[in-house]
Amino acid sequence: MSVIDELTSEFAKLPGIGHKTATRLTYFLLKQPPGAAARLAKAITTVTERVRPCTVCGNLSDDDPCAICADPRRDRAVVCVVEEASDIGAIERTGSYRGLYHVLGGFLSPLDGVGPDELRVAQLIRRLENGSAVEEVIVATNPSMEGEVTATYVREALQPTRVRVTRIALGLPVGGDLEYADGVTIERALAARREMGA
Amino acid sequence: MSVIDELTSEFAKLPGIGHKTATRLTYFLLKQPPGAAARLAKAITTVTERVRPCTVCGNLSDDDPCAICADPRRDRAVVCVVEEASDIGAIERTGSYRGLYHVLGGFLSPLDGVGPDELRVAQLIRRLENGSAVEEVIVATNPSMEGEVTATYVREALQPTRVRVTRIALGLPVGGDLEYADGVTIERALAARREMGA
Repeated sequence: MSVIDELTSEFAKLPGIGHKTATRLTYFLLKQPPGAAARLAKAITTVTERVRPCTVCGNLSDDDPCAICADPRRDRAVVCVVEEASDIGAIERTGSYRGLYHVLGGFLSPLDGVGPDELRVAQLIRRLENGSAVEEVIVATNPSMEGEVTATYVREALQPTRVRVTRIALGLPVGGDLEYADGVTIERALAARREMGA
Repeated sequence: MSVIDELTSEFAKLPGIGHKTATRLTYFLLKQPPGAAARLAKAITTVTERVRPCTVCGNLSDDDPCAICADPRRDRAVVCVVEEASDIGAIERTGSYRGLYHVLGGFLSPLDGVGPDELRVAQLIRRLENGSAVEEVIVATNPSMEGEVTATYVREALQPTRVRVTRIALGLPVGGDLEYADGVTIERALAARREMGA
């Protein structure tokens, strides 16, 4: 396999990139001024070497605690629970949320071997223990079946902590994916969050 | 700018990749097992370090002459002229062409400062000089206005060599781009190539 085919096949492993697009990306890089490809390669290496989950919230960051956890201007009374670190960016871009986050690291999926112990729920409960400033946990798992089941599980797991648990409103298109929702929809869904019943 | 934002902005410089897709690619890499991102970074570095234009045909390759020019089974009587090295892959994938190639390195575009001297036409003429085995040159520039003008220019430039000059048939969708055409269309267009009139 030639080095061109090798790069094309590496690009084609990325999500949403087929063989034709991968070929196009390879030849695009070959036509760029020297340095452009090196910058991309270096950014990839740096990200994987330096980025780790924040030990507080699970957000992916090159700082620990992450910039959000470390920011004194954030509202420490609210924690927004998301499935993946990439969901945080979607909420941050709306500019309408000033609280903290907690990344579960996925959703409950027994068939894929993801049970409660695979999610960072114990860490969340620890964040809510005595002396905690947290008054409300907004569960912003995806509006999918698995996300709803996970939300219900989180609410039940948090019951002993007596913290207020709310669910982001289903203004999000049902069956969709939080990461790709538009900012206005996310903003509206945050504003219309509701108390979680039993 | 965080290293995550840096990689996202590098991805977003690639053609057809917007901010959302770039974010998705970054988080995808962060979720891969160690080694996946390193392989991609290494493939990018290797390609830009090792790939150079073939001194015979202009194809981008890590060998010089490239694998096609060096292959004794290729038909040395036919040379297919293309705008870009990436067009070669599109023709090769059809499996219907066994001749050689010549990469012009673009198309005539006076407004962008691309005149005859910027294209590798002199090198093509040199390939056709005394002792050459080439009997036919197939001009497979894009079926766009610029591609047609470039094809006409190549035909005129080759007139003194007395080699047979043909044009790939416009079975290709007019206004399209050779690199993205499907294999069957390219194959049909190659088979229906016609003599170039004056």
